[in-house]
Amino acid sequence: MTEEYWKGINKIEYIGHQDKKSQLGFQYYNPDEVIGGKKMRDWLRFSVAYWHTFDQRLVDNFGDGTAQRPYDKYTDPMDLALAKVDAAFEFYDKLGVDFFCFHDRDLAPEGNTLRETNANLDKVVDKIVEYQKTTGMKVLWNTSNMFSNPRFVNGAATSPSAEVYTYAAAQIKHSLEIGKRVGSENYVFWGGREGYESLWNTDMKREQDHIAKFFHMVKDYANEIGFDAQFLLEPKPKEPTTHQYDFDAATTIAFMKEYDLDKDFKLNLEGNHANLAGHTYQHEIRVARIADMLGSLDANQGDKLIGWDIDEFPSNLYETIAAMTEVVENGSIGPRGGLNFDSKPRRSSFEADDLFYGHIVGMDSFAAGLRVAVAMKEDGFLDDLVKERYSSFDSGIGAEIDNGTADMAALEKQVLDMPQSELITSTHSDHLEQIKDTINHYMIETLSK
Amino acid sequence: MTEEYWKGINKIEYIGHQDKKSQLGFQYYNPDEVIGGKKMRDWLRFSVAYWHTFDQRLVDNFGDGTAQRPYDKYTDPMDLALAKVDAAFEFYDKLGVDFFCFHDRDLAPEGNTLRETNANLDKVVDKIVEYQKTTGMKVLWNTSNMFSNPRFVNGAATSPSAEVYTYAAAQIKHSLEIGKRVGSENYVFWGGREGYESLWNTDMKREQDHIAKFFHMVKDYANEIGFDAQFLLEPKPKEPTTHQYDFDAATTIAFMKEYDLDKDFKLNLEGNHANLAGHTYQHEIRVARIADMLGSLDANQGDKLIGWDIDEFPSNLYETIAAMTEVVENGSIGPRGGLNFDSKPRRSSFEADDLFYGHIVGMDSFAAGLRVAVAMKEDGFLDDLVKERYSSFDSGIGAEIDNGTADMAALEKQVLDMPQSELITSTHSDHLEQIKDTINHYMIETLSK
Amino acid sequence: MTEEYWKGINKIEYIGHQDKKSQLGFQYYNPDEVIGGKKMRDWLRFSVAYWHTFDQRLVDNFGDGTAQRPYDKYTDPMDLALAKVDAAFEFYDKLGVDFFCFHDRDLAPEGNTLRETNANLDKVVDKIVEYQKTTGMKVLWNTSNMFSNPRFVNGAATSPSAEVYTYAAAQIKHSLEIGKRVGSENYVFWGGREGYESLWNTDMKREQDHIAKFFHMVKDYANEIGFDAQFLLEPKPKEPTTHQYDFDAATTIAFMKEYDLDKDFKLNLEGNHANLAGHTYQHEIRVARIADMLGSLDANQGDKLIGWDIDEFPSNLYETIAAMTEVVENGSIGPRGGLNFDSKPRRSSFEADDLFYGHIVGMDSFAAGLRVAVAMKEDGFLDDLVKERYSSFDSGIGAEIDNGTADMAALEKQVLDMPQSELITSTHSDHLEQIKDTINHYMIETLSK
Amino acid sequence: MTEEYWKGINKIEYIGHQDKKSQLGFQYYNPDEVIGGKKMRDWLRFSVAYWHTFDQRLVDNFGDGTAQRPYDKYTDPMDLALAKVDAAFEFYDKLGVDFFCFHDRDLAPEGNTLRETNANLDKVVDKIVEYQKTTGMKVLWNTSNMFSNPRFVNGAATSPSAEVYTYAAAQIKHSLEIGKRVGSENYVFWGGREGYESLWNTDMKREQDHIAKFFHMVKDYANEIGFDAQFLLEPKPKEPTTHQYDFDAATTIAFMKEYDLDKDFKLNLEGNHANLAGHTYQHEIRVARIADMLGSLDANQGDKLIGWDIDEFPSNLYETIAAMTEVVENGSIGPRGGLNFDSKPRRSSFEADDLFYGHIVGMDSFAAGLRVAVAMKEDGFLDDLVKERYSSFDSGIGAEIDNGTADMAALEKQVLDMPQSELITSTHSDHLEQIKDTINHYMIETLSK
Repeated sequence: MTEEYWKGINKIEYIGHQDKKSQLGFQYYNPDEVIGGKKMRDWLRFSVAYWHTFDQRLVDNFGDGTAQRPYDKYTDPMDLALAKVDAAFEFYDKLGVDFFCFHDRDLAPEGNTLRETNANLDKVVDKIVEYQKTTGMKVLWNTSNMFSNPRFVNGAATSPSAEVYTYAAAQIKHSLEIGKRVGSENYVFWGGREGYESLWNTDMKREQDHIAKFFHMVKDYANEIGFDAQFLLEPKPKEPTTHQYDFDAATTIAFMKEYDLDKDFKLNLEGNHANLAGHTYQHEIRVARIADMLGSLDANQGDKLIGWDIDEFPSNLYETIAAMTEVVENGSIGPRGGLNFDSKPRRSSFEADDLFYGHIVGMDSFAAGLRVAVAMKEDGFLDDLVKERYSSFDSGIGAEIDNGTADMAALEKQVLDMPQSELITSTHSDHLEQIKDTINHYMIETLSK
Repeated sequence: MTEEYWKGINKIEYIGHQDKKSQLGFQYYNPDEVIGGKKMRDWLRFSVAYWHTFDQRLVDNFGDGTAQRPYDKYTDPMDLALAKVDAAFEFYDKLGVDFFCFHDRDLAPEGNTLRETNANLDKVVDKIVEYQKTTGMKVLWNTSNMFSNPRFVNGAATSPSAEVYTYAAAQIKHSLEIGKRVGSENYVFWGGREGYESLWNTDMKREQDHIAKFFHMVKDYANEIGFDAQFLLEPKPKEPTTHQYDFDAATTIAFMKEYDLDKDFKLNLEGNHANLAGHTYQHEIRVARIADMLGSLDANQGDKLIGWDIDEFPSNLYETIAAMTEVVENGSIGPRGGLNFDSKPRRSSFEADDLFYGHIVGMDSFAAGLRVAVAMKEDGFLDDLVKERYSSFDSGIGAEIDNGTADMAALEKQVLDMPQSELITSTHSDHLEQIKDTINHYMIETLSK
Repeated sequence: MTEEYWKGINKIEYIGHQDKKSQLGFQYYNPDEVIGGKKMRDWLRFSVAYWHTFDQRLVDNFGDGTAQRPYDKYTDPMDLALAKVDAAFEFYDKLGVDFFCFHDRDLAPEGNTLRETNANLDKVVDKIVEYQKTTGMKVLWNTSNMFSNPRFVNGAATSPSAEVYTYAAAQIKHSLEIGKRVGSENYVFWGGREGYESLWNTDMKREQDHIAKFFHMVKDYANEIGFDAQFLLEPKPKEPTTHQYDFDAATTIAFMKEYDLDKDFKLNLEGNHANLAGHTYQHEIRVARIADMLGSLDANQGDKLIGWDIDEFPSNLYETIAAMTEVVENGSIGPRGGLNFDSKPRRSSFEADDLFYGHIVGMDSFAAGLRVAVAMKEDGFLDDLVKERYSSFDSGIGAEIDNGTADMAALEKQVLDMPQSELITSTHSDHLEQIKDTINHYMIETLSK
Repeated sequence: MTEEYWKGINKIEYIGHQDKKSQLGFQYYNPDEVIGGKKMRDWLRFSVAYWHTFDQRLVDNFGDGTAQRPYDKYTDPMDLALAKVDAAFEFYDKLGVDFFCFHDRDLAPEGNTLRETNANLDKVVDKIVEYQKTTGMKVLWNTSNMFSNPRFVNGAATSPSAEVYTYAAAQIKHSLEIGKRVGSENYVFWGGREGYESLWNTDMKREQDHIAKFFHMVKDYANEIGFDAQFLLEPKPKEPTTHQYDFDAATTIAFMKEYDLDKDFKLNLEGNHANLAGHTYQHEIRVARIADMLGSLDANQGDKLIGWDIDEFPSNLYETIAAMTEVVENGSIGPRGGLNFDSKPRRSSFEADDLFYGHIVGMDSFAAGLRVAVAMKEDGFLDDLVKERYSSFDSGIGAEIDNGTADMAALEKQVLDMPQSELITSTHSDHLEQIKDTINHYMIETLSK
């Protein structure tokens, strides 16, 4: 029996919204409640992010870490790495999540060679695998950190240095092997350095050719070793580089299609990244959904008045309602997707409890979003509205357009002599203000039940 | 008895949130309900904006007007102007507001000379004054449009042309006289052209001297004619000019102090303008409130991913809760302030009904914001949190700092030999994630009652 | 012989930079000078935009038009339309450009039916065709305005109304016929309304299917009538709609690939649009260039601190140097591309002369950009730098990666036991500050020759 | 004689623009050349920033430091601190600057108590003072780092903790004493943590009262010890906090006036901070200049498409021309101001040479800006343009407005019966396109001489 790390915290329970004020408990997340035909836990598949929750010291560009963590007493890097595994599994249990995510470098320190680095990592993974056996905890996805080490200053798979590229390939080879051992459902690539600092010295075409080859090698090697995770690319426009190649969902899909990767890769989408690209989270999910490219979601929120990635725990119900509306429409987050909290407490929320409060507000916000999305779906509110709006394409000339049987001459004939007054505007308007009013209604009515 | 303009619309009533779905009615705005010690109508003092509601054709930079209005049949400009007065007062009555706002140019067409322009305006104002007698409708504020006419291309009171400046003064003289006739509670200046297109050709100091003189002349003339409205400046950073002098609340307060206008002028603040300046609406209201400069509010919302003024009807409850929290703290919106809907339906919501839906979602959203703000105030939620957070200044060395009895030597003595470990971080943290969780709780619980 | 419209303006000549201060004349644009193997006029292929130069009244969202034009005396719409043709061809001649561009609606007023509208347009086109015979003026591209008329409030080819879609098809059919008559080199689509105001009521997939069918119909009809222009899509992210489907170059390429349009369509790219999407102009051109999708360029500049499309005449030499560097690398602007001035004078530059000054600064800025780009190319400055930077891929393991002969195991073997110290960072750095210093050097040295 | 740190670098000399390509040397900065009545070195007063040039490891939010510095071999913090002084003075000498700037924490490590921290610092300052005697190097300003240590998580002089406030006062007391020892010309406050993370828990008024008291204590203590530096506040809007109180120049001036600090404090303004607040650098300098509040300048540039502080070395000549135009108009940068390079090489420019290239491009860019600004001043280009533009205020009714002898009735009389046609627009336009064309002309012509 290991030491208790998160002292004074009991298992977080569903207590409902009326009883909840500032105590630790869920207002809206009731994991085994069935809603829209599935348990909430199966719709949401919440995951804790190892890096933010266990590694993050709450630094920023101008300040040192403020975090106070119960394993801070460990000074030897491997002792600390192993202690964090205990703390992590206790955290998962108390919070009541079924999944977690990690980068290779989150788990263990680097050694003097890659072989030593891998050995360090293996030791920690051994311990994780043991925990998985007894707890049933699953890995939503793992990934490889190819952005922190100075060697990746100019990219990993898009580095102008063949040696760095080689190192990246070797590093990821081991991550794939680890993914197989821990049974990762997905494998994610966030290309934080895969872009450019300046176009003047960048051969964009050659770099994109390189990274595409890299992804094909990854896929081949995964097949070779029988690692069957869903591969995912995670778009982000421009931090830390000036411009990243995976700018947003549409750009990343274009890249996949160009390089014949769209059959084997899907997207992992994040709210804050969406905003930095000038989009809403809902937009990005919609783009992925209609292209059948929705793989998984990173759960966080940005501040649209702030120009960098702040990774706040999600609390804005409008954003979670919008996201979950897309998910409900899609039937799930993705074939093997979930909601990973790529979120961290504010730097002033530096105590251990804050990690629980952060996850609670995040889980409750997405659970609330799910409840509202299901209510709107079951009432047919949005479906009816959309069906009606496009109904002119369901018959007559509209259906001919949809069927591809109309041509320009036929279409011209329809309107050539129609008076302007009949064409001036469609008589059917959109009533967007009424839609917003109704969404507020659904939010309050559904969540107060 | 005049023609009925808004056919098929009955007086909008409070129907409560449970019964409301898409019908016309208020979910949260119950005008005579007493909350936090005042009737809702007296807290909120809703006002309809003449320009957006009756004049706005729903044009944009790339498209002609789509609006369909019941007085579109009038072609003679004065007939139309007079018909709009009937339509406006019917609208106020059906919507159930107590105030409206207007620019001089909203009401009547310009003539060939300013004298003729004034005469046109006077005719319409005569009719308005008659309506006021029978309905009790009040003018929250009036203002003068000194930005649309080409003569104001380089500003009005900051124009490099003395002739344009002279014209602006003459125009506003008449607006002050009209303000007196209609009993305006406030008089607003939005300096849409008072700024610069380019610094290369701009004498910023001379322009600011000119406009300050202008405001002093306005104040003097108002005193002379016994027009006792509260004067207000409305900040906006940069549309339509490249840069407007009244960039935001803080900048505008600085200007007032510099030119000795801070005793006679306060601020009229708008959500969308706040966002364009990189601020939240709450920030702008807070800045004004603590400087005792809060005069009145324009009610609308922007889209923080969009870089221009979209003047949406407010529907985001987080923003109205935040705004009303400041108002509740302030005791009122301002000495004679109210909430003016500087809002318009989306261009695709072009039917007459949409004007009602827009105002309903706006009024309900602010009424909901008021309900939640009052509930948090009555529970002492935020007050307690803030009191506790700053409590170290209530006694000991903190109190000496506040009292001004501490000096640097005294402060140094306190900490010079204190070990770092005791200073590393305060033990009291902020729990921002918990605060957000609690605000969601208040929102749902209060609004579902 | 027609009336002279642009009085007091002589043919604009190349006068060189030393003699130039505020007089009308070109500093850097010397049309028949051969540089980098081509005449400047053939590299640049400048085009005047009919809408901005002859129709634009210099309105903005808050102000009426300020423009003073020599044909303002015409009140009958067709008289005005025909007078503008005379003024336009006089303008082209005096400015010394070889191309112009237009929307259908720029040229002639709409009639009561599409048939009448087409008849009005044909009359103006007749006159244009006559002028073309005598002057040799060419049309860089024509297009159809499917965004201004209220009927397009919810889109044209993505409208939820089949009737509007039908109208759009009929309208564009005539534009294709006109394109053939005037011999347009390209045909452009800017989908200003092809996007969404709100995702809640939008069937994004169905709308994209519709517009793809539309483009296939366009292509088929063009083939049918023997109109052989290059088709171009013009990306813009979000004005006037909340979100346009053709967000940026990458998104638009993705769309083309998805719908099998990438063989027949290329891109028309604009600097201000690039900025609104969060990109530089150079980025957009690069993305198009390496995908072999560069079709043509709109020449203007934005203000990156301003969130809407301001369409300034280009004057920033850094931006024109960057754009022309891509063009020089590409060998040309595109198969049949040119530089179209989608630019307008500032609202305070409302006199007729300002139209000449605007075009002069724009033409000179791109001519200067070309001179500097050619000088850097001829010296091999950037080519050498890039070649060296990626040279590790030219041999050894790098070449194996490029050839596709390396696999993960082989790559791992290279680095598994290499000490971190050897890998910590590549020894070859990028010296970005030195690159910028050198670009300044090229700018001054080249342009002072 | 100490070790040589910057091996292979000789003293950087003025070599002129023709000869310069990528070698180390100045193109435009010729320190003892007299221009506009002063030596270039006296106009520009360049300063090296200790933190960026000697301490900065080139980390970012997602990556470890890449910097390679010649003193990296030192592992003991005090040995390293003392070695850096040698390296710094060698750097100043080789670069040819006369000033440097530092934070207290840049120079020496913290100890276990403030007393020990001060002792560490004093040892390094002793060495600096010795160097100053032999080299004549001056300190443009010093400052105190009150943002990195976790204790400042919620602010220093605006912390809700009285203990943290006390510590900040004690820390700064020593910085003032050091400022006196090294003879700092100015003393700067950048309040990176002086603002809020969330308004919900912030008492903005109390915090501003606290920091104003703090500044008064600072001033009093400086007087007490006879430290006569000019005090400066440095605005920045929102990084690292959500919102900083010193948002921009105008806001900071408002604060100073409110708290009676405007006689003793001026502004230190930075280009990148200006952009983050939505302004140009020129705007911020202009605002300060006309308020007689310009104190000193931080020299760097941002990327307006990037939402965080990147602190690039200045290379954009348009921005340096604009900044130096304001400086030339002002007669100097400020009473004791200079240009401090708050700039760092890009993370990929990690070699020691890059520090020289960075400063060279920065110094050359400002020297070029000075040359162009002086040329425009000497020709009267902008002065004439502005004088003419406002000339209607120099006589007649305009002069009466300026003199304050006009009132509203008098102004009304002037225009009441004037026909609209005479008023429609001023006949004098602004020709902004021509101005830009002329500025390009000045840039090329001046810099090629």
